[in-house]
Amino acid sequence: MKIAGILNAMSLFTDIIQRINTEPKKAPQPLPETKSGFDEPIYKQDQQHPSIAYMYLKRKFRDLGRMNAIIETLGRDFLTAMPNGAYQSRLGQISFMHRLMHEDLTEEETQRWLDRARDHQYKSPDDWDEWDTANLNEMTNMYLMFTNVDPDLIEDKARLSYEGRNHHRALKETGDWEQAKGFLSAQIDLNRKIADARCKTLGVDSHYQMLMQEFMPGMTIYDTELLFNSHEDALNKIYPLIQAKQASESPPIEIDAKYDSESQMWLNRSLLEVIGFDFERGGLYETGHNPVEGGTVDDTRLVISNVDETNFLNSMKSALHEGGHGIYIQGLPRQSWRYQPVAMDLGAAVHESQALLIEMILGRTPEFFEFLSPRLEGLFHGMNNQALSPENLYKRKTRIKPGVDRKKADEVTYFFHVNLRFKLERDLIDGSLSINDLPEAWVEGMHASLGVLPENHLDGCLQDVHWFVGKFGYFPAYALGHMMAAQFHNTMKKEIPDMSEQISEGDFSQIQGWLNENIYRHGRLMSTKEMLKKATGKELRAEYLEKHLRKRYLD
Amino acid sequence: MKIAGILNAMSLFTDIIQRINTEPKKAPQPLPETKSGFDEPIYKQDQQHPSIAYMYLKRKFRDLGRMNAIIETLGRDFLTAMPNGAYQSRLGQISFMHRLMHEDLTEEETQRWLDRARDHQYKSPDDWDEWDTANLNEMTNMYLMFTNVDPDLIEDKARLSYEGRNHHRALKETGDWEQAKGFLSAQIDLNRKIADARCKTLGVDSHYQMLMQEFMPGMTIYDTELLFNSHEDALNKIYPLIQAKQASESPPIEIDAKYDSESQMWLNRSLLEVIGFDFERGGLYETGHNPVEGGTVDDTRLVISNVDETNFLNSMKSALHEGGHGIYIQGLPRQSWRYQPVAMDLGAAVHESQALLIEMILGRTPEFFEFLSPRLEGLFHGMNNQALSPENLYKRKTRIKPGVDRKKADEVTYFFHVNLRFKLERDLIDGSLSINDLPEAWVEGMHASLGVLPENHLDGCLQDVHWFVGKFGYFPAYALGHMMAAQFHNTMKKEIPDMSEQISEGDFSQIQGWLNENIYRHGRLMSTKEMLKKATGKELRAEYLEKHLRKRYLD
Repeated sequence: MKIAGILNAMSLFTDIIQRINTEPKKAPQPLPETKSGFDEPIYKQDQQHPSIAYMYLKRKFRDLGRMNAIIETLGRDFLTAMPNGAYQSRLGQISFMHRLMHEDLTEEETQRWLDRARDHQYKSPDDWDEWDTANLNEMTNMYLMFTNVDPDLIEDKARLSYEGRNHHRALKETGDWEQAKGFLSAQIDLNRKIADARCKTLGVDSHYQMLMQEFMPGMTIYDTELLFNSHEDALNKIYPLIQAKQASESPPIEIDAKYDSESQMWLNRSLLEVIGFDFERGGLYETGHNPVEGGTVDDTRLVISNVDETNFLNSMKSALHEGGHGIYIQGLPRQSWRYQPVAMDLGAAVHESQALLIEMILGRTPEFFEFLSPRLEGLFHGMNNQALSPENLYKRKTRIKPGVDRKKADEVTYFFHVNLRFKLERDLIDGSLSINDLPEAWVEGMHASLGVLPENHLDGCLQDVHWFVGKFGYFPAYALGHMMAAQFHNTMKKEIPDMSEQISEGDFSQIQGWLNENIYRHGRLMSTKEMLKKATGKELRAEYLEKHLRKRYLD
Repeated sequence: MKIAGILNAMSLFTDIIQRINTEPKKAPQPLPETKSGFDEPIYKQDQQHPSIAYMYLKRKFRDLGRMNAIIETLGRDFLTAMPNGAYQSRLGQISFMHRLMHEDLTEEETQRWLDRARDHQYKSPDDWDEWDTANLNEMTNMYLMFTNVDPDLIEDKARLSYEGRNHHRALKETGDWEQAKGFLSAQIDLNRKIADARCKTLGVDSHYQMLMQEFMPGMTIYDTELLFNSHEDALNKIYPLIQAKQASESPPIEIDAKYDSESQMWLNRSLLEVIGFDFERGGLYETGHNPVEGGTVDDTRLVISNVDETNFLNSMKSALHEGGHGIYIQGLPRQSWRYQPVAMDLGAAVHESQALLIEMILGRTPEFFEFLSPRLEGLFHGMNNQALSPENLYKRKTRIKPGVDRKKADEVTYFFHVNLRFKLERDLIDGSLSINDLPEAWVEGMHASLGVLPENHLDGCLQDVHWFVGKFGYFPAYALGHMMAAQFHNTMKKEIPDMSEQISEGDFSQIQGWLNENIYRHGRLMSTKEMLKKATGKELRAEYLEKHLRKRYLD
């Protein structure tokens, strides 16, 4: 149960909020003098409010936020530093904490206080500013997402998600489909059960819709299909044109050589400083496992896969991607709303938009390579090395090549990988695709969209860790995020006229300022739709990504 | 609130146990089918027992044990890896977890279940084997230690103990007594308040006695004074003889040179493997902070101060000390009693006995240096280097020199450092020494016992981290542990006749077997007194340490 991933679009809940908005059964007692523990001095969560029930709720959600932060630390340690022998007991500890959080969130007093606070809000709307209003809504949503879910399922979910990481890593040795199938079936079954309980609470009729909403509040299957179909049509037009254009050009000079890992990590950390990541509240580390996302606003330790010494572009790509996530996390409301639901990020699509804006959109501009190139020459001892020229780096990073591996995919073909996974997981969850037919469906899908054929399951349906850790409904976030990033970029170019020049000088201060002003600092004050409309003037559209791709790959 | 440090001698509690042993108010319901979470398959804690209340208690204490393990992980991360900016929020998280544990332990149902289980035990003693009996006693003790303590004090204690580490580190720059005084006063005040609540519950009349019992169940001020006075008398006789003897001998060749830190850490880790430390369930790391003790039976990550490259003996000493702690932790009952109170260690004195047995007693035998010397020659490239000869290493590590620094003290003068701290903290807590008079009392004590004078507060009363982290009542454990180690050693020599030869071959298997058989595997099945009597035939006596020192330093 990650707080950051459990909320739903508010619009969906109007009915339920009405339903629970009955007269309170029992009046809460006035709170004793508040004591926020040992965080910074002034907190909105400690501020007096005329609704005593709301004060109680703020305290409860502060503690839930703390539990969530504790789970983050346990999880990062589990995945990066813990000795193997602690595996079983740590699984027990983590799933226990999830259960504790769940029980604390869903205990009877929560509903009573929500009733009471909503009643107060209804009768005295002037006591509620926009932050408190949004905060109470998020509290309600979170409660509704969990209230009818069996605690055993929550514990199982936590356990399976960590076991899944290990299972996936073990599979990389064997690639054994039969073994994977059993585990994936268990994950599908468990996630369906959880979705089913929520569907009943919230009157939603699709399990997959419910799972998607957990990661992306307010995003529907229907909207996703519309956007994806529209982008697919566009790509089917421009992808052959890009292929033809690049076939007529000379290929880039390969940059493969020996790049020692210490220098690479220095580069990665320095680039994160350039984009505005605060190392006082975070760090960047390597791991033999899959990269770990997440962290909290106070402790954003990013983890990327071990550096590949033959190619610095791989770890740089991961670092920029995680760095984009990191500056979003660090920019969320910290001083006044720490731990409160309104201070959370807007979910996976917005999160990926921030990662992909840095990694794919800004991090592959000619200007970025102008900034990077001379520093690379110095760092990697290659004075006037043509492989490290801005032109060659740009060419190398914008080269299109259909392949079977999502992680290695270029910016154009990336969408096909995501679209396939979206359709397959949707059908797996809603039951129209049997797990037995997954490998074949995968191969067919890859062949139909990109004309490539995976040689084995590891290059096919076993390549991603997501389903193993129980993330069904997450994949669309990559493509939606890419679209969103292009839409933000389109506006930023207008509002920061000399953005290109700034990037070529390694100056991201205005870029970060814009992101902070329009996205980070609001937390969940607005819904994703409202935020997008306010920031870019429009709801999410696929056309900006198409425009971006046309400009970069066909102009 | 460390579980490992909160129990008291059972003998003290007979009255109170009687008092709470009234008829239960409300019968607990039968437990649903147990589910131990995701630890190993068979657990005593999951085993059916005719007392349903006891089943509930086992489940509660399993969860308390998990919380304690979680706090261990948060704390280790706090002290070794966390970014600075997370300082305040992590303090909040850790103190919150302590509060949660406290509330869970002291909630009303705990007493009800304890009443009920004790009643069952009284009526059907045959249902209770020795392990269940000891476990229930430890549960009762733990409950009594906390039941009347204000949760705010528990939160404050957790916070102050971490703040104290930082405070102490900052003081190392300034050495400012006035600043230290304020902080230490707050610690004394807080610890007195907690002790006061416990004294009332348990009918104990000395605050310091109460604090000492937290670290060393069953150990009284009176016994400690008797043992310390006896040892002081002995030392006053033999210490001048040792000084005279060593003054007539040639000094050891200094080993100061350059020893790279990677080789040192390899050596330290290898020596831990030699003594039987399991790296599958633990590790050894360096830190810029003070070393971190602790860990759990599943995750024993030891941390020592950053290696000194001019002298490998310093980090080796720390590694052997922490390694002694580590093998004790790892040897506690794991498979069947994990997380249950009966599986805890016996407290600080026994813990230090294990650390000092390895570090000071076995780790400074001529045989140990015989094993070590040729390997050092290879590791540090010093073939036939006389500084690394067994004889010189032995001479170097058994050289007596009075000094102001406890951590650098030799095996003979170490006691004087501990004895001074014991008397000062006893008087600080019981009020007969004012904090204002501490620096002077320290200087006087050092001069009277060892004839040395600290040049400043950092070499004097500010040198240790213990009081800053709120550990009042811990210091005696070092000297009591040293005595205990000598007493164990005395028996081991008889029961493992060729122990010396085994050590010279780097074979600690029989030594570890003896420690496991007599100490580790019992957890808290017996009290310290009972364990000592069973293992060595006698209660704790000072004479074995004197005998050991006479043999090593005067024969």
